[in-house]
Amino acid sequence: MSGHLSVIGIGPGTPEQITPQASAALAGAEALYGYGPYLNRVPARPGQTRHASDNREEAERAAAALRHAADGARVAIISGGDPGVFAMAAAVCGEIEAGPPAWRDIDLEVVPGITAMLAVAARVGAPLGHDFCAVSLSDVIERRLDAAANAGFVVALYNPASRARPWQLGQAFARLRAHIPDHTPVIFGRAIGRADERVQITTIAEADPARADMATLIIVGSAQTRVVKRPGRAPLVYTPRIGELLRNDQDAPA
Amino acid sequence: MSGHLSVIGIGPGTPEQITPQASAALAGAEALYGYGPYLNRVPARPGQTRHASDNREEAERAAAALRHAADGARVAIISGGDPGVFAMAAAVCGEIEAGPPAWRDIDLEVVPGITAMLAVAARVGAPLGHDFCAVSLSDVIERRLDAAANAGFVVALYNPASRARPWQLGQAFARLRAHIPDHTPVIFGRAIGRADERVQITTIAEADPARADMATLIIVGSAQTRVVKRPGRAPLVYTPRIGELLRNDQDAPA
Repeated sequence: MSGHLSVIGIGPGTPEQITPQASAALAGAEALYGYGPYLNRVPARPGQTRHASDNREEAERAAAALRHAADGARVAIISGGDPGVFAMAAAVCGEIEAGPPAWRDIDLEVVPGITAMLAVAARVGAPLGHDFCAVSLSDVIERRLDAAANAGFVVALYNPASRARPWQLGQAFARLRAHIPDHTPVIFGRAIGRADERVQITTIAEADPARADMATLIIVGSAQTRVVKRPGRAPLVYTPRIGELLRNDQDAPA
Repeated sequence: MSGHLSVIGIGPGTPEQITPQASAALAGAEALYGYGPYLNRVPARPGQTRHASDNREEAERAAAALRHAADGARVAIISGGDPGVFAMAAAVCGEIEAGPPAWRDIDLEVVPGITAMLAVAARVGAPLGHDFCAVSLSDVIERRLDAAANAGFVVALYNPASRARPWQLGQAFARLRAHIPDHTPVIFGRAIGRADERVQITTIAEADPARADMATLIIVGSAQTRVVKRPGRAPLVYTPRIGELLRNDQDAPA
């Protein structure tokens, strides 16, 4: 009776970006746990129970799903994007570490998904084309922003504009401006592939924190990030690989 | 006759992790360009031409595909993982910027995929659960490794062991050891979901560069990264979110 728990990434919101692995895991679950709006993106299945919770209740949601799985059920937790990037997988691991020994015997499966920065990047070109960082502004460690920008990383900002911390994005932009040129491209992207998708390309000098809402992902370029104008089309934003033309070897893990 | 070019991420290698959007883009292409082993993962379709090239020829491959699309064809370039992460999308943008004006009128679509670090992370738990960086060792900027580790980022290393630079991974581990505790978890992962999948969990003190091959993705934890032992199961590795229990607000873009 060890049970099974899948922590499933459903991507940015369009069904076209949900992997077959995630769809199969969703279909095979007897019970789905998740933040209400994420649950609403998953088609209903007869006999499958749904347990919606507030976005602020990650640890409680993880514990509830683990208790349910420990009873022998096939349980799934839904994450937007990828469950391992500022989402539910770490909360589940934390509850397993802190919880009863039986939880360590649950068959845990983490199903990766398209995380917001990949979807936003794809929409505009390849701004993450060279070294980059992902930083959550939910509990930002400000010296990390300094270190990343100073060392030439492109920076993806998750959770930029929460109700509890509306000032944080403005502070983050101010810190980044100390390290990168005024014309450095900045991309605001939200709800990629959904009806309410919005993408804006601006610069760090002009970036307005008020344009971000809770569902926005922001990519701040490096000094190497370039904008290619295209008549009649949206511009491309990309960060070239260093030595793009000098390279004589390039063996990428896939 | 502006043509269409899709740059398609096919994920780490298992068909279960290819999104429906990527599958549709593959099926709709008249011509596929890519590194031979990636092309071999895509089912053949009658009437579709295939143009395999060596992994070292990114710029040439991008230019050939753009020329073909500029003739009015529906062309696709295949990337392993995500095309925007150390892969083909930046090369295509670079060729568009440098190439003839007509290339700016090609209908360019970048289709995101599951990049290696997300697949490896999912396999072991949630090591990317808080702030992280992705760094390519193909053209490594060593102060970025120092900055990332010193600021507490988890670091994903792409292209760790190329034929032309076999010493680079050892040098990178040596630099990272100066900033993080000896017991910091390190994960080697390759070919996730494929028959030749291999995942190893070790520590930065013990990490052996010779264990990485060209298809390996390495995640080096931070001082916060934890390992949870599980009797009869592989351990979990995760990096907790800061203030996991103190948080009163958490609005994640999906």
